[in-house]
Amino acid sequence: MSFQPLADNLKPLDVFATIADDLRRVETAIEAALSTREKMLEEVSIHLLRAGGKRIRPALVILSSRFPGVSLDKVIDVAVAVELIHMATLVHDDVVDNATLRRGRPTVNAIWDNQVSVLVGDYLFAKSFTLLSETGNNRVVRLMSEVVREMSQGELAQMASYFDVEQTEEDYFKRIAQKTGYLIAEACRLGAVMAGAGEEEVDAVYEYGMGIGLSFQIADDLLDFFGDESTLGKPVCGDLKIGILTLPVIHALHHSPMRGELREIIGTRSIGAAEVERVKEILAASGSFDYAREKAREHIDRAVRALERVPTLTTRPVLKTLADFVVNRKF
Amino acid sequence: MSFQPLADNLKPLDVFATIADDLRRVETAIEAALSTREKMLEEVSIHLLRAGGKRIRPALVILSSRFPGVSLDKVIDVAVAVELIHMATLVHDDVVDNATLRRGRPTVNAIWDNQVSVLVGDYLFAKSFTLLSETGNNRVVRLMSEVVREMSQGELAQMASYFDVEQTEEDYFKRIAQKTGYLIAEACRLGAVMAGAGEEEVDAVYEYGMGIGLSFQIADDLLDFFGDESTLGKPVCGDLKIGILTLPVIHALHHSPMRGELREIIGTRSIGAAEVERVKEILAASGSFDYAREKAREHIDRAVRALERVPTLTTRPVLKTLADFVVNRKF
Repeated sequence: MSFQPLADNLKPLDVFATIADDLRRVETAIEAALSTREKMLEEVSIHLLRAGGKRIRPALVILSSRFPGVSLDKVIDVAVAVELIHMATLVHDDVVDNATLRRGRPTVNAIWDNQVSVLVGDYLFAKSFTLLSETGNNRVVRLMSEVVREMSQGELAQMASYFDVEQTEEDYFKRIAQKTGYLIAEACRLGAVMAGAGEEEVDAVYEYGMGIGLSFQIADDLLDFFGDESTLGKPVCGDLKIGILTLPVIHALHHSPMRGELREIIGTRSIGAAEVERVKEILAASGSFDYAREKAREHIDRAVRALERVPTLTTRPVLKTLADFVVNRKF
Repeated sequence: MSFQPLADNLKPLDVFATIADDLRRVETAIEAALSTREKMLEEVSIHLLRAGGKRIRPALVILSSRFPGVSLDKVIDVAVAVELIHMATLVHDDVVDNATLRRGRPTVNAIWDNQVSVLVGDYLFAKSFTLLSETGNNRVVRLMSEVVREMSQGELAQMASYFDVEQTEEDYFKRIAQKTGYLIAEACRLGAVMAGAGEEEVDAVYEYGMGIGLSFQIADDLLDFFGDESTLGKPVCGDLKIGILTLPVIHALHHSPMRGELREIIGTRSIGAAEVERVKEILAASGSFDYAREKAREHIDRAVRALERVPTLTTRPVLKTLADFVVNRKF
């Protein structure tokens, strides 16, 4: 299939400037992987590519592979595969969440329908596993299949937890590890595995990735309260409205002096603009937003410490900068 | 998780009597593969296991592996993986088709919802690839990932073809190969691959499987016209009503003297009981049902001929009997 130039839609973070050429090669490889003669699939693929994305996961595969003498060729298939898994989960999650906007653009289920989304997601998963199998490394396939299982379990757990005022901080962290942490950590691990790094180094970049991933998700959950629709690319406080309780809410439910009122509001399972404002007041007054920011910082610190255990990784400064960026992001 | 005894739900075909013990071991392994601590997933898994199934695909893995000296241990993981892929596609297809009944029981999307179906299907796919990766054979992973891609493309092609009176017999055969043929053929091929058979033998069982698969689907499409709801376990003429045009219809659209009237009926995109009856009259009068039966027979003949190329496969008589059974089935 032929695409209009997509470069404008690709918005890699400034922190990835040192691997910009590699990321462009990855983008071309993603386009090639989505090339098909099936008309509907082609249309959806073009939509997904135009929608762009920050390509954080392929960037992490590359950055985690940069031991002396290791080039992109060793990891490009895995970098593409990880991004396809990410795209597949986004397409399926938009069905699960009944979402109509993602990154400010209509979702696949909004333009086409849930049926198309299910099948395109399946196609993307399958294509990803084809690429992973072509590495000839079975461990890579096994690890990624386990991540996909965790992700679907995390989404199921999230559905089961809607408006559940009894859930704990532990439940939250397990869920965000499943939803976000494992895939980002795996992107890092597979970069190091494909580079032929030692197990100690493989473990270290995995821990870096998990720290980044959890912190990223906490920050994302905070942005749901403070972003506006134009920067978020989706409705404000969307999580709360559909019953997804994130860390600040869970903190306040257990520790706020106003937790009785908060339980009552959430217990109604009907949260409009007025309720959202009141919840935000309670969370702010209870220090719950600050608590969540502190937790995000703790996980970033853990990520940065893990980098000390991979002294020969040439990209450590970039990974360190990325870590700083994640907790301060406004996107 | 603990199950009530499931033996009653497992209804292997009589033709599989010689491998009944193996199929029971496969069933236990499927239960183990679906074991989970995630509550919603456990409930859905139990539902899927209770719903049973004929386990044709695992049986074909086993039967195609039975070269002298090859035991179940070589193929049990692949047999389970193939059935999990099949279960995953059923769960996702029921979302795609908005189906509420399958094998006479409510579908997952009917009891829970589309969201749960999407995630459970993803989980089953991922678990299957975990099992396949554990064989240590990358070819097995690659082949199966390609089948999953074909299946999702086939479903997309089917959606794009609803009520399309211009589609050809070639379109139909491509679609049923994607929907049904590839997975059944792959079940056979992977049995032989895991058994360490030569390429000529691997190709032969693949061709057997493709012949069986296509014939099976043609027969299934015919049953949609002639079954009743209690034996079908789903509504009669469901395909036609939602716009899926199968071989007899496509034949009549191109060859019947009454094709003008048929095009008109289908073109209304609104097919009730009266229209169904009239379509059936046209198809019968045009010899279109007979034509489809003849095509099913041709593919079975092709399957049986392929068996001649695997003289050392000890289960050839069983595979031959299965072939006879497929074209004469009333289930």
